[in-house]
Amino acid sequence: METRTFHLRTPARTAFMNITHEIQTILDACPADSGLVTVFTPHTTAALTINENADPDVVKDLSYKINDLIPKDETAYRHGEGNSDSHLKSSLFSPSLTLVFENRRCLLGIWQAVYFCEFDGPRTRTVHVKIIEDK
Amino acid sequence: METRTFHLRTPARTAFMNITHEIQTILDACPADSGLVTVFTPHTTAALTINENADPDVVKDLSYKINDLIPKDETAYRHGEGNSDSHLKSSLFSPSLTLVFENRRCLLGIWQAVYFCEFDGPRTRTVHVKIIEDK
Amino acid sequence: METRTFHLRTPARTAFMNITHEIQTILDACPADSGLVTVFTPHTTAALTINENADPDVVKDLSYKINDLIPKDETAYRHGEGNSDSHLKSSLFSPSLTLVFENRRCLLGIWQAVYFCEFDGPRTRTVHVKIIEDK
Repeated sequence: METRTFHLRTPARTAFMNITHEIQTILDACPADSGLVTVFTPHTTAALTINENADPDVVKDLSYKINDLIPKDETAYRHGEGNSDSHLKSSLFSPSLTLVFENRRCLLGIWQAVYFCEFDGPRTRTVHVKIIEDK
Repeated sequence: METRTFHLRTPARTAFMNITHEIQTILDACPADSGLVTVFTPHTTAALTINENADPDVVKDLSYKINDLIPKDETAYRHGEGNSDSHLKSSLFSPSLTLVFENRRCLLGIWQAVYFCEFDGPRTRTVHVKIIEDK
Repeated sequence: METRTFHLRTPARTAFMNITHEIQTILDACPADSGLVTVFTPHTTAALTINENADPDVVKDLSYKINDLIPKDETAYRHGEGNSDSHLKSSLFSPSLTLVFENRRCLLGIWQAVYFCEFDGPRTRTVHVKIIEDK
């Protein structure tokens, strides 16, 4: 199926936004029964990940600890835009994520959600979703 | 080929377990000659990675250093289950890993093995393997 | 299409080398219109990532900060080759990266490039590129 694209508005410099529903909705509109779903964001200060969907404190702790490890400002940074930390976080979390689907449902665990990771917001961001059908 | 699933028992809170053989065995049972193998674990405190298969000290050093960077206990963590560190490690290592195969063999380097990464064990864990055939 | 392979020479212990052109050239030689491109490096002290292609200070800052977080030498490392840090960096950045292409072009953002990440160079390194055509 041709790549589908959606946009979202992020609320803060660091944010984790649950996009599982958006991905499943795209999958629902695809006739394929099983295959791969590659989710890709075309930004260098954002990423995609999977983590817990139940307790919102989990993503708060992710935000706290990644910002503790990689602070926004360091005197050694040379890049002039003040977001060198965001670029490193984007690479470590990765802007590409591949899911498996079977019987038209993503094979996510009961506690798993797909999150868009914002590391230099607030901004309007783009997400591409490519479905590859199994034979 | 329909997704194949296997389970494993992890021995400690942090552990790296070589699952290359399990993946190749699933590939051996598939008629496809070449394509992609997506390995996916449906947990939010575990992950998958590739690293050295020769010296067992390499994965000991991975365990040491990731736990040094992201300790189990921090006063700032809000999540009440005592495994906020495990959730961050899961996102940084990623629960999804895509391999390439050609002539029915994964194109791994001579020193590479696929590892299941346990960050909140010991537990019984699940791994899904989806093979997508090339045309 | 059968997996394509290319090699590159890295210039330093830590280096980020733009390989977007090499990947697009392989895609140009493939008749497929759309699908996935999985890029894979068969090494345990190197990786692949996506990051900014414009200001070369961004990858300098990536190098600085990842080496600050994970220094080459720590007394706790047991592995005798002096590159335990390189192995951890390889796992965190990942040796596997999946891109989406449509109309024969990778769907990269305007600021995105694909980088080979060297964490234990200088060395001669290998990169595999597998293209999976959409139906």
